[in-house]
Amino acid sequence: MENIYDLIVLGGGPAGYLAGERSGHAGLKTLVIEKRALGGVCLNEGCVPSKTFLNSAKIFEHANGHGEVYGVTAENAKIDQKKVVARKNKVVATLVGGIGMQLKNNHVDVEMGFGEILGKTEQGFKLKVNDKEFIGKKLIIATGSEAVLPPIPGLKEAYERGFGLTNREVLDLEEIPKEFVVIGGGVIGLEMASYFNSVGSKVTVVEMLDHIAGNTDSEIAGILKKNYEKKGVVFKLSCKVTKIGEDYVEYEENGKLNKVKADKVLFSIGRRPVTKGFGLENLAVEMDRAAIKTDNTGRTNISGLYATGDVNGVLMLAHTAYRESEVAVNNITGKKDIMRYTAIPSVIYTNPEVASVGLTESEAKKQGFNVLVKKVSMMFSGRYVAENEGGDGICKVVLDKDTNRVLGVQMIGNYSSEIIYGAGIMIETEMKVDDIKELVFPHPSVSEIIREALFI
Amino acid sequence: MENIYDLIVLGGGPAGYLAGERSGHAGLKTLVIEKRALGGVCLNEGCVPSKTFLNSAKIFEHANGHGEVYGVTAENAKIDQKKVVARKNKVVATLVGGIGMQLKNNHVDVEMGFGEILGKTEQGFKLKVNDKEFIGKKLIIATGSEAVLPPIPGLKEAYERGFGLTNREVLDLEEIPKEFVVIGGGVIGLEMASYFNSVGSKVTVVEMLDHIAGNTDSEIAGILKKNYEKKGVVFKLSCKVTKIGEDYVEYEENGKLNKVKADKVLFSIGRRPVTKGFGLENLAVEMDRAAIKTDNTGRTNISGLYATGDVNGVLMLAHTAYRESEVAVNNITGKKDIMRYTAIPSVIYTNPEVASVGLTESEAKKQGFNVLVKKVSMMFSGRYVAENEGGDGICKVVLDKDTNRVLGVQMIGNYSSEIIYGAGIMIETEMKVDDIKELVFPHPSVSEIIREALFI
Repeated sequence: MENIYDLIVLGGGPAGYLAGERSGHAGLKTLVIEKRALGGVCLNEGCVPSKTFLNSAKIFEHANGHGEVYGVTAENAKIDQKKVVARKNKVVATLVGGIGMQLKNNHVDVEMGFGEILGKTEQGFKLKVNDKEFIGKKLIIATGSEAVLPPIPGLKEAYERGFGLTNREVLDLEEIPKEFVVIGGGVIGLEMASYFNSVGSKVTVVEMLDHIAGNTDSEIAGILKKNYEKKGVVFKLSCKVTKIGEDYVEYEENGKLNKVKADKVLFSIGRRPVTKGFGLENLAVEMDRAAIKTDNTGRTNISGLYATGDVNGVLMLAHTAYRESEVAVNNITGKKDIMRYTAIPSVIYTNPEVASVGLTESEAKKQGFNVLVKKVSMMFSGRYVAENEGGDGICKVVLDKDTNRVLGVQMIGNYSSEIIYGAGIMIETEMKVDDIKELVFPHPSVSEIIREALFI
Repeated sequence: MENIYDLIVLGGGPAGYLAGERSGHAGLKTLVIEKRALGGVCLNEGCVPSKTFLNSAKIFEHANGHGEVYGVTAENAKIDQKKVVARKNKVVATLVGGIGMQLKNNHVDVEMGFGEILGKTEQGFKLKVNDKEFIGKKLIIATGSEAVLPPIPGLKEAYERGFGLTNREVLDLEEIPKEFVVIGGGVIGLEMASYFNSVGSKVTVVEMLDHIAGNTDSEIAGILKKNYEKKGVVFKLSCKVTKIGEDYVEYEENGKLNKVKADKVLFSIGRRPVTKGFGLENLAVEMDRAAIKTDNTGRTNISGLYATGDVNGVLMLAHTAYRESEVAVNNITGKKDIMRYTAIPSVIYTNPEVASVGLTESEAKKQGFNVLVKKVSMMFSGRYVAENEGGDGICKVVLDKDTNRVLGVQMIGNYSSEIIYGAGIMIETEMKVDDIKELVFPHPSVSEIIREALFI
């Protein structure tokens, strides 16, 4: 029967399309089902489109006064938000097209439409899309995650009338709001705060915790905050939003209710796995709170059923999803592979960028390591000094004194996003400090700072 | 006696100051002698100051029309070359000061002045600086390299009257020449061609070879050339300069003499080790052509005498010099260490940047490896697409089919300079393709392209 597949992948985001590609490449008859657009949130309304915004912002800053210290002046600098959005759409279209091609090249079928799990039969998992039925001998659930919209009074209404936005709508905003309020100072919130600050909005970030940037090393999060405060962003920490009003956000600060005016509000409060509405209840899947529980091969409690990417609730990062899907497909095709989370980089694409991999100082201490932290100012890098007037970046290398191995690296300063993977290799290959000292880094580069830190 | 040192380092450039730092750190009584400025050519008139220029150029391009495709416009963009030079001087002063501090912190004495080797006595190597005499039980020669000024008719005169420049003078140019001719299409020539092209000069590069960028992978050198041709740089390849005229450069092309008009001419023809004029002849040092011959510990044929950095003629890169000096100091202090050249990155900081490490395809074939090349367009990187409209970057991974190991990586595209060290780690730690496939790279980043290439 034509509709029987070796593997069906439900969801065409990073976890889903990558699983499809690897599965097709391995020779499995594979179907990817996607309800909205190949590439998922990451490509269509997340990591990649936000980078087009932030790239335009950096260029705008260069034209808009920030170049002066480097000898460059210009007048009447403008950013055309409509063009920024149009270019974003073009970039997304290019990349979505690329994924379609990759799937085709790997002989993967793609069914665009809402996929529903009907149940498990002797033949496999039965799914319905666009009134067609498909059977998958194996099934990978890669339905991803969605923005959390908590039951704050007025929030739902604000969202419905376009005053409140999620990561999806904010990237289609064709006008720059005069006053932009961001609820939630995590990665998404900070990147959008950064963008709208650069292009002229008055930005306020309201965060429930007493710090921004989630699990980022606290010193680095502090430096990031200071950088944005200098640029005019207002941070309201330890503040709980109590109401979304007509043109304001109300929040509680030290027991008192305050208001901040807003033209637009971004809800970047968190994301949750998408596990409802597509028939998951027709399989008796074990859950771990809101997420599908998996082992380190991506297997669920149901034979033949895997879950990869945000839906497993582990890290909710596109690159984690890629690797989880590879591990799952390898296991499906009989190749031994397990998922490790010890060297997963994470990046905040603000200006300056923040990048981390492995354990922070406080995490390492909590886990009982005999911790030694090597910290160095980015000013020890000639290239950093050349390109960052007044820069205050740092690099921290977290070492295990007992083994002389790297447990983690955290950095704030531009290019960190492109440097951090190498620190991940050091962790993954269990390099010792003396091994790293023997590496040769190109001079002048910011990457040298990692080696520099070890000699401090 | 106060003037007896465990180690004297002749030269305060990357090889010299780093040797000083490491030696002082290890507890040796150390003297660094520098005739001009700590930091040497690299810091004062080479790698670092050129980066301040190129950074300003990038910013200027953003303000000067190149931002339009990203939604950014500005009027009347200007670059103030005097300010660019002043900022360069400030950056250099900061970094030179930093080196002085580092040496001081490591209890290293610094003698500013021209150091001359008088000979070797029973006590050690005797040197004279500023009419003072010093004895070093060991001596590291780190005198670096200088620009080659070949006996082309008119060249010497052109240099003397300031029409012709080397890497030194070009970085002090306070006016942008209308017509700028670069003789020699290697790294220095290309970086300066890039700068003056960006800021409005009409640039012509005259190169004797049939390709630019020296030993760079030929396909990548070709892409770089195409990029600059699009920007208006004229390349005269296989052309030999025959004369430097009053306001022109004469060259032979296909047996015919042609002229190109110039307001300034850069001589970036090559560099040669500095081995003359400081009494090297008072030691019977074995040479390897123009360079001091050393083994893989930095030792020369004379007991106690080492040579590191450009003066050994091996790679002439600051970061190679660093590592060679570390190896030498480790050997001096009795710690086993040898210099390896298999994973030394090299970068051309043009726009787009070019970075390489390990063997190119043709080098690997020449060395008899069973070569497999994985090549991928940078357009496979979401971040690259987001930030590089019309980009044509590529990444090549050169593999050894027999061992499944990485022999080399070459890339053209921005951020390559900061990414390449990680590829060096892959080579240095002898990672196999399957190991690299298990690494997690941050998404979206250009660094992902290395992993992407392996799945092609």
